[in-house]
Amino acid sequence: MTSNRDIDTLIQMMAKLPGLGPRSARRAVLHLIAKRELKLMPLADMMQSVAATARECAVCGNIGTSEVCDICRASKRANGLLCVVEDVADLWAMERGGAFQGRYHVLGGTLSALDRIGPEQLRIPALIARIEAESISEIILALGATIDGQTTAHYIADQIEGHVRLTTLAQGVPIGGDLDYLDDGTISAALSARRAL
Amino acid sequence: MTSNRDIDTLIQMMAKLPGLGPRSARRAVLHLIAKRELKLMPLADMMQSVAATARECAVCGNIGTSEVCDICRASKRANGLLCVVEDVADLWAMERGGAFQGRYHVLGGTLSALDRIGPEQLRIPALIARIEAESISEIILALGATIDGQTTAHYIADQIEGHVRLTTLAQGVPIGGDLDYLDDGTISAALSARRAL
Repeated sequence: MTSNRDIDTLIQMMAKLPGLGPRSARRAVLHLIAKRELKLMPLADMMQSVAATARECAVCGNIGTSEVCDICRASKRANGLLCVVEDVADLWAMERGGAFQGRYHVLGGTLSALDRIGPEQLRIPALIARIEAESISEIILALGATIDGQTTAHYIADQIEGHVRLTTLAQGVPIGGDLDYLDDGTISAALSARRAL
Repeated sequence: MTSNRDIDTLIQMMAKLPGLGPRSARRAVLHLIAKRELKLMPLADMMQSVAATARECAVCGNIGTSEVCDICRASKRANGLLCVVEDVADLWAMERGGAFQGRYHVLGGTLSALDRIGPEQLRIPALIARIEAESISEIILALGATIDGQTTAHYIADQIEGHVRLTTLAQGVPIGGDLDYLDDGTISAALSARRAL
């Protein structure tokens, strides 16, 4: 395409990233090459450094650079409070919110009969093991409001019911949300969970 | 954000690429880390290889890995026919079309009084030097149909008029284009350049 093998390969690799296509990959690579010292070299170095050090936290499944991640090691995090999320992106989203002060457990996906993902493919056995080991008193199921997410939530609830307090994120109107743009399911959920002013 | 310095830095670097933002950069980095051996390491290696070898062709300004690019060195390319483009992305677009068999000259931008870009900031003197050195017989000005692109085309035409045959790309209805979605300027241009069936 550019009549140069390495640059073509780099563009093809970039084009396979989520959110990029062939056109934006070409633009990105040209941008990087134009600013080689300032952008391409530092990015290549940082990728190599992350490739060498990134690893899954042995406790919660978060991605970090140490055996046990910073959140699991933080002493000021509330003990006994565990938030269960589908993947690392959800964990990071919760952290950006900054409202949660407990620890996490990343499942690594949701149960899915179609994709043949059962409890053993997820970190559900590890979650059950943590409840006793860390004397967890409350588990917040912060799974997606999708069919697979809710199936997974129900499965986990069945497994650990009685051992620990189980909660889930509230459903309702998002902050700044306009009723006119909300789907019917969300409006119904917000209505049935209405609270006194 | 992720409470890990290297991963945060990598996300910030990726987020500054054209076409990516913070959210898509996070997704891309998580995707890369999840497939470290298969994606992140090869991408980092390829970036380092391109960073080490990519350079501007000394003749035409194309980006390649040798002093003179493959297109300039290709013996089967038509001598004497030069296509002037604004940047390397335009050259690659022409090459994808596959219809042009001459050589290129990349200006590196367009004249712009606002951005203080004059002929010396572009590769216009090099273009004029090539006309005699390579005994060019025709120059195709394939510059954008923008005000800056057309200003640049007129400036180049003024400089080299009489020395060489000057042509420009045809303007008209794009292949597969629907008249209803075309702007008035394009329709007018296509009408005034109408040809016998």
